Amino acid sequence: MKLLILNGPNLNLLGKREVDIYGHQTFESYFAQLQKNYPNVELHYFQSNSEGELIDKLHQVGFSYQGVIFNAGAYTHTSIALSDAIAAISSPVIEVHISNIYKRESYRHHSYLSPVCTGSIAGFGLYSYNLAIEAFQKKT
Amino acid sequence: MKLLILNGPNLNLLGKREVDIYGHQTFESYFAQLQKNYPNVELHYFQSNSEGELIDKLHQVGFSYQGVIFNAGAYTHTSIALSDAIAAISSPVIEVHISNIYKRESYRHHSYLSPVCTGSIAGFGLYSYNLAIEAFQKKT
Amino acid sequence: MKLLILNGPNLNLLGKREVDIYGHQTFESYFAQLQKNYPNVELHYFQSNSEGELIDKLHQVGFSYQGVIFNAGAYTHTSIALSDAIAAISSPVIEVHISNIYKRESYRHHSYLSPVCTGSIAGFGLYSYNLAIEAFQKKT
Amino acid sequence: MKLLILNGPNLNLLGKREVDIYGHQTFESYFAQLQKNYPNVELHYFQSNSEGELIDKLHQVGFSYQGVIFNAGAYTHTSIALSDAIAAISSPVIEVHISNIYKRESYRHHSYLSPVCTGSIAGFGLYSYNLAIEAFQKKT
Amino acid sequence: MKLLILNGPNLNLLGKREVDIYGHQTFESYFAQLQKNYPNVELHYFQSNSEGELIDKLHQVGFSYQGVIFNAGAYTHTSIALSDAIAAISSPVIEVHISNIYKRESYRHHSYLSPVCTGSIAGFGLYSYNLAIEAFQKKT
Amino acid sequence: MKLLILNGPNLNLLGKREVDIYGHQTFESYFAQLQKNYPNVELHYFQSNSEGELIDKLHQVGFSYQGVIFNAGAYTHTSIALSDAIAAISSPVIEVHISNIYKRESYRHHSYLSPVCTGSIAGFGLYSYNLAIEAFQKKT
Amino acid sequence: MKLLILNGPNLNLLGKREVDIYGHQTFESYFAQLQKNYPNVELHYFQSNSEGELIDKLHQVGFSYQGVIFNAGAYTHTSIALSDAIAAISSPVIEVHISNIYKRESYRHHSYLSPVCTGSIAGFGLYSYNLAIEAFQKKT
Amino acid sequence: MKLLILNGPNLNLLGKREVDIYGHQTFESYFAQLQKNYPNVELHYFQSNSEGELIDKLHQVGFSYQGVIFNAGAYTHTSIALSDAIAAISSPVIEVHISNIYKRESYRHHSYLSPVCTGSIAGFGLYSYNLAIEAFQKKT
Amino acid sequence: MKLLILNGPNLNLLGKREVDIYGHQTFESYFAQLQKNYPNVELHYFQSNSEGELIDKLHQVGFSYQGVIFNAGAYTHTSIALSDAIAAISSPVIEVHISNIYKRESYRHHSYLSPVCTGSIAGFGLYSYNLAIEAFQKKT
Amino acid sequence: MKLLILNGPNLNLLGKREVDIYGHQTFESYFAQLQKNYPNVELHYFQSNSEGELIDKLHQVGFSYQGVIFNAGAYTHTSIALSDAIAAISSPVIEVHISNIYKRESYRHHSYLSPVCTGSIAGFGLYSYNLAIEAFQKKT
Amino acid sequence: MKLLILNGPNLNLLGKREVDIYGHQTFESYFAQLQKNYPNVELHYFQSNSEGELIDKLHQVGFSYQGVIFNAGAYTHTSIALSDAIAAISSPVIEVHISNIYKRESYRHHSYLSPVCTGSIAGFGLYSYNLAIEAFQKKT
Amino acid sequence: MKLLILNGPNLNLLGKREVDIYGHQTFESYFAQLQKNYPNVELHYFQSNSEGELIDKLHQVGFSYQGVIFNAGAYTHTSIALSDAIAAISSPVIEVHISNIYKRESYRHHSYLSPVCTGSIAGFGLYSYNLAIEAFQKKT
Repeated sequence: MKLLILNGPNLNLLGKREVDIYGHQTFESYFAQLQKNYPNVELHYFQSNSEGELIDKLHQVGFSYQGVIFNAGAYTHTSIALSDAIAAISSPVIEVHISNIYKRESYRHHSYLSPVCTGSIAGFGLYSYNLAIEAFQKKT
Repeated sequence: MKLLILNGPNLNLLGKREVDIYGHQTFESYFAQLQKNYPNVELHYFQSNSEGELIDKLHQVGFSYQGVIFNAGAYTHTSIALSDAIAAISSPVIEVHISNIYKRESYRHHSYLSPVCTGSIAGFGLYSYNLAIEAFQKKT
Repeated sequence: MKLLILNGPNLNLLGKREVDIYGHQTFESYFAQLQKNYPNVELHYFQSNSEGELIDKLHQVGFSYQGVIFNAGAYTHTSIALSDAIAAISSPVIEVHISNIYKRESYRHHSYLSPVCTGSIAGFGLYSYNLAIEAFQKKT
Repeated sequence: MKLLILNGPNLNLLGKREVDIYGHQTFESYFAQLQKNYPNVELHYFQSNSEGELIDKLHQVGFSYQGVIFNAGAYTHTSIALSDAIAAISSPVIEVHISNIYKRESYRHHSYLSPVCTGSIAGFGLYSYNLAIEAFQKKT
Repeated sequence: MKLLILNGPNLNLLGKREVDIYGHQTFESYFAQLQKNYPNVELHYFQSNSEGELIDKLHQVGFSYQGVIFNAGAYTHTSIALSDAIAAISSPVIEVHISNIYKRESYRHHSYLSPVCTGSIAGFGLYSYNLAIEAFQKKT
Repeated sequence: MKLLILNGPNLNLLGKREVDIYGHQTFESYFAQLQKNYPNVELHYFQSNSEGELIDKLHQVGFSYQGVIFNAGAYTHTSIALSDAIAAISSPVIEVHISNIYKRESYRHHSYLSPVCTGSIAGFGLYSYNLAIEAFQKKT
Repeated sequence: MKLLILNGPNLNLLGKREVDIYGHQTFESYFAQLQKNYPNVELHYFQSNSEGELIDKLHQVGFSYQGVIFNAGAYTHTSIALSDAIAAISSPVIEVHISNIYKRESYRHHSYLSPVCTGSIAGFGLYSYNLAIEAFQKKT
Repeated sequence: MKLLILNGPNLNLLGKREVDIYGHQTFESYFAQLQKNYPNVELHYFQSNSEGELIDKLHQVGFSYQGVIFNAGAYTHTSIALSDAIAAISSPVIEVHISNIYKRESYRHHSYLSPVCTGSIAGFGLYSYNLAIEAFQKKT
Repeated sequence: MKLLILNGPNLNLLGKREVDIYGHQTFESYFAQLQKNYPNVELHYFQSNSEGELIDKLHQVGFSYQGVIFNAGAYTHTSIALSDAIAAISSPVIEVHISNIYKRESYRHHSYLSPVCTGSIAGFGLYSYNLAIEAFQKKT
Repeated sequence: MKLLILNGPNLNLLGKREVDIYGHQTFESYFAQLQKNYPNVELHYFQSNSEGELIDKLHQVGFSYQGVIFNAGAYTHTSIALSDAIAAISSPVIEVHISNIYKRESYRHHSYLSPVCTGSIAGFGLYSYNLAIEAFQKKT
Repeated sequence: MKLLILNGPNLNLLGKREVDIYGHQTFESYFAQLQKNYPNVELHYFQSNSEGELIDKLHQVGFSYQGVIFNAGAYTHTSIALSDAIAAISSPVIEVHISNIYKRESYRHHSYLSPVCTGSIAGFGLYSYNLAIEAFQKKT
Repeated sequence: MKLLILNGPNLNLLGKREVDIYGHQTFESYFAQLQKNYPNVELHYFQSNSEGELIDKLHQVGFSYQGVIFNAGAYTHTSIALSDAIAAISSPVIEVHISNIYKRESYRHHSYLSPVCTGSIAGFGLYSYNLAIEAFQKKT
């Protein structure tokens, strides 16, 4: 099983920025743990701050991978183009969020991505990614 | 670990109603499976179509259980009283939905419960409940 | 033919409350008349002020009766849960209102129930119920 | 008893257009049936695609007929002028719709006519007209 | 000086309808008085319930008359086409209303015609027409 | 003088929940004090988390008591049915709130109950109930 | 007949400010003309930039004058207090505007004063005041 | 204990204006009664129709009095400046209204002052002021 | 191939009105050119200022012509009845506009017709009609 | 004549994605056809999923090409920056859409680009591009 | 160069009120510093809590001073009259705010004054005034 | 002191595009002037049309520079991702705009960046950048 973890804008600062909300661990170190914890899943990881590069990546993996775990950060709330990209590819996509976005500003309560994703997981810290992997494994 | 699965209005029809959306399995049979799959979790189950009874149940378990997995059905979108009940108790609550509510009518896109829950999981069928149990176990 | 007349909140006060809008006849006495007027229809009657009990009743009759005539009172405008209950059962439901709700406060102009009912009848006083019975009989 | 059935825009295509929604019967043939079914009602019929002609007709019959059964089609949702015409005449008017307009586009959920009509009947196919005649007969 | 008084939908019922709001005088008898009171103004009068005929009339007089006094009734609030017709002609148009439309339903508070008219006069009963004639005379 | 104090959802947790907002005293102990402080008022008390039971109680006392002091909690903002119940009974109702609801979430700023109550008192802690009793006594 | 012309904020600059919209004549010189043109009307004039002083003036004349001609300038769109003052006095008030306010910014399209005034006149330059005097004279 | 009763626009007309809503008593005579009824409270009274003077008064007493009882009339719904003044002073302020503002126009349902006041009392006629004094006394 | 060019309100003034927006050519002369330029298309032309007549025309040609090129003018933004007429006929309809309606007032940005037309062409002056003919020819 | 066809996000998937909406032909093969069909037009083609690269391209060609045919995909509805880029360059831009965007989700009904483009063409499949070329040729 | 610093409601409390937001320095002492720092600017200062007095002041200096630095406090968000006053005078006006108003309540995010001012400066504490003086000096 | 001037989309065209709004000077030549005028500030400059590159740049300098002067152009109004980037870095950011954005389209009146910036400066032409440098210098 081949899965891509795709992270959007500002998530490269994880572990460095606003640590009271997001915690101190960098995503890179967490990703290494994930690979260890799920030895029979081929896990890939890509991060970009550019909407265009995230679309490119979805196109590239979206017809061959078994799934994409997508934390689109702020693009979640503004990008119809990413929503179209998810709808266009054949791989299923699960939307994840580290924080509970419903406790934050009201413009973070609407997601353009949710309607075209398989499901959504939000609020469990980095463990949200684990739950998404569990969900993909279940399906197999 | 003591967890309550709390189901709201119309979820007693699961497996009988709108099977194209919710599937053929009754929640009772699914619950029996869950108990088998998680032998070291003390799982309880309660369903009611009454907003008042759901509040009563949250009050009753909410100061002693380790968590509540709550699928409030349509009350998700209309009940400030349930939101207040969740905020008032000390047990953490995870919001779950069987279907991807963001693919349905727009009045199902807003949840009064999300901001007072620990996290939300939607769209994975009955497996959404499993993921919630996983999330609670992780925390321990 | 087996039909349920289902009345929602405050309709137990019919004939006692706001008689300038709703008239002086109690629903019980009107129901007795209806039973006489339609001898070959098996008419049943249930009223509750509780949203949950109304859902319970819809579940109970909704797979065996030929129809439900539903005046949900104020829940018409606030209850997605009742709307879901109607959508979930197999018996057709006709929405009735005694007064012309469109002459009253604007929050009474929207109905969550209309889109899942067969049809709607409003403004004919208690005779609205007769028209609903006529409509069900036609169908047979 | 003298009643006018007044049909608005596009209802002349009934039985020819969108037959999956409105059925195959033309209104003319249905009207002939109605006249037979209600021998002691003097039934008249008028259809126009012009808002102005519908107003003219309401003025013409609205001080002498016992009632008007009005399906204003799309003008239901856009015409304050028709609403004013109904308010201005002395004959009572019943609003009817063939389809359940609440299952269709949201701009069909608001009616300028409802607040000035005696009552509304929607969703019973052509039988909606019968129910309106029944309602008028009851009143006599 | 050649002026057209143009009256829209339902104003033919003036003196017959809703006399508590509009008074008992028919517009025809009032118009005769106006002609007497303003002997050196060539006053014309046209009424129609049809939006199209009102547009036609505006086109017909709008390049030769010195002014139009327009009470568009309910079309005031719904007709962009009449607004376009006023903008397209070269004769100035004064908007008049018999009643104070701001004391009535909120959908009567917006006028598509005001921005393309010279000015607006509302609330003075039939005397609103006199004031409009005075305003046109001043300009000469 | 016979008065009912009627408390809605979650108010049974008073003194246990969110003590920084609502204080440490249970309503039961406060009610005992009230009875002592107002010896010539026959004070009754009822609490329920169920919208239906609150309606039932209003119906039961609403034709014989001299007044109802109603803190409807979250139902204040969502229940048209309770508003209808208050309008239907003959006893006057005073709306009370412990906290200043205008300092909280915006969905707590609108009350369906205010327009049908005699008056509203909010923000004085439990003393809001005293003020309501004073107000009823004044009237006598 | 005793009438007050009451002018609100910035109208003291008339003839000096934005002359392309309001023209070059000061209101004082225009007022002198008005007094000459209507010798049998006792015309008074007051202008203030202060909402409070305008209310004071309305109270002062509003129980003895035959009418007030009120151009409230920008307070037209923001002052409920002035609207209350007009409703509280017994003298009738006519709202006037020099420019056609419907050709300007959208926040100038709503008037808090219109619903409590006898009528409204807008868009005729300073001649709007003449028309208001005519309207008051008619009434006598 | 030193308290200021502060009344806003048009409240000087109390007892003269709209007596069906506000009653026949002037505030001055009521104030004399209040002083008699509460001999150990040093009661002061100030009324102005000017927003600026009301702010000045709040600044003047707001650092030395034990409380302000404020009926801001129409400024309640439009004045952020008064809201800022209340927030800026150290004396607590109680908002009072004579009528039940929730039974009136919808633009009277929002108060800029409520969120910065201690509490609100509305609908008890002039007795609203008594209740506010009671509330302040309780606090001492 | 048989095509109808259907023009709505005020388009009869083309070449006479607002020539800075619409140019100096009358539609009649342009239509003659079109007939010459497309000799193998049977082009017809109809214009009306009446919504009802436009509906009538659509019904008349809409089951036999190969297409309709429709510039509904201001009715584009207000007429659900025309939208229903287009949906009811079997001939495809292309929406055209001479000017770029998106550069004009915001109420011209919404079209009730677009969702039921094959396609839309706007902003190319009278050449918009040519492009529509090209589009119909392509399809054949 | 030198024209650029500029395609925005996800249009590189044309012919591969959602073929029921967009058809089976890739844009590259269609572009080759276009070049053959318009031998005396120098046609260029650029596609990017990146908003920034699309702006760069507009800047690069926008002062020397005779026109740009722009299908901005989802950026049509979200990008003010692209709208600014079109306004900033001197080459005229025609907006094209393959599908009829008005039949799709409501957030696709608004275009930030339309007001700054020469004109818009939508709903003719890939032939929309041909029509845009025709429109540019006409202008020359 | 002659400049007026004009301060609106509650700014007289600067240094006394809400010191966590606005700091401990009174405006008077700051103004003395400003005069020292800009010896070749003739700086004047006026503060009022009255909207009318602020308008009066703008009229008084607005045709002779080289500029006005205006902190309108809460009137920024509610006063069209002040906006009109700025538009009416010939002196340029710069809008300043001490705090970053965009971090505060949403009703502080809209300014009626910005569109008629030269520019806006917000969020730099009292130094916002310095920046405005710098901006005016640059222009000279 | 090390400051970055960061310019967003289309600002590379400064001096070439819409010169009536933005003037004839290129930013590069203005930047050279700035460096001369502020010799003891280490000024850097970066421009990009790509949202992603702007985020990257903010991350790169945002933990070591003393400040960022950010003119985000159209992204000001659409980018939550840039707002998150500003919130995530430790360097303070000042928002600048060349034109007075409040005089332009309403969608330019809202800024996602203002609430996370130190302050905002708009409307002073290129001199807005000078004022921002002054503001940063003050702080040191």
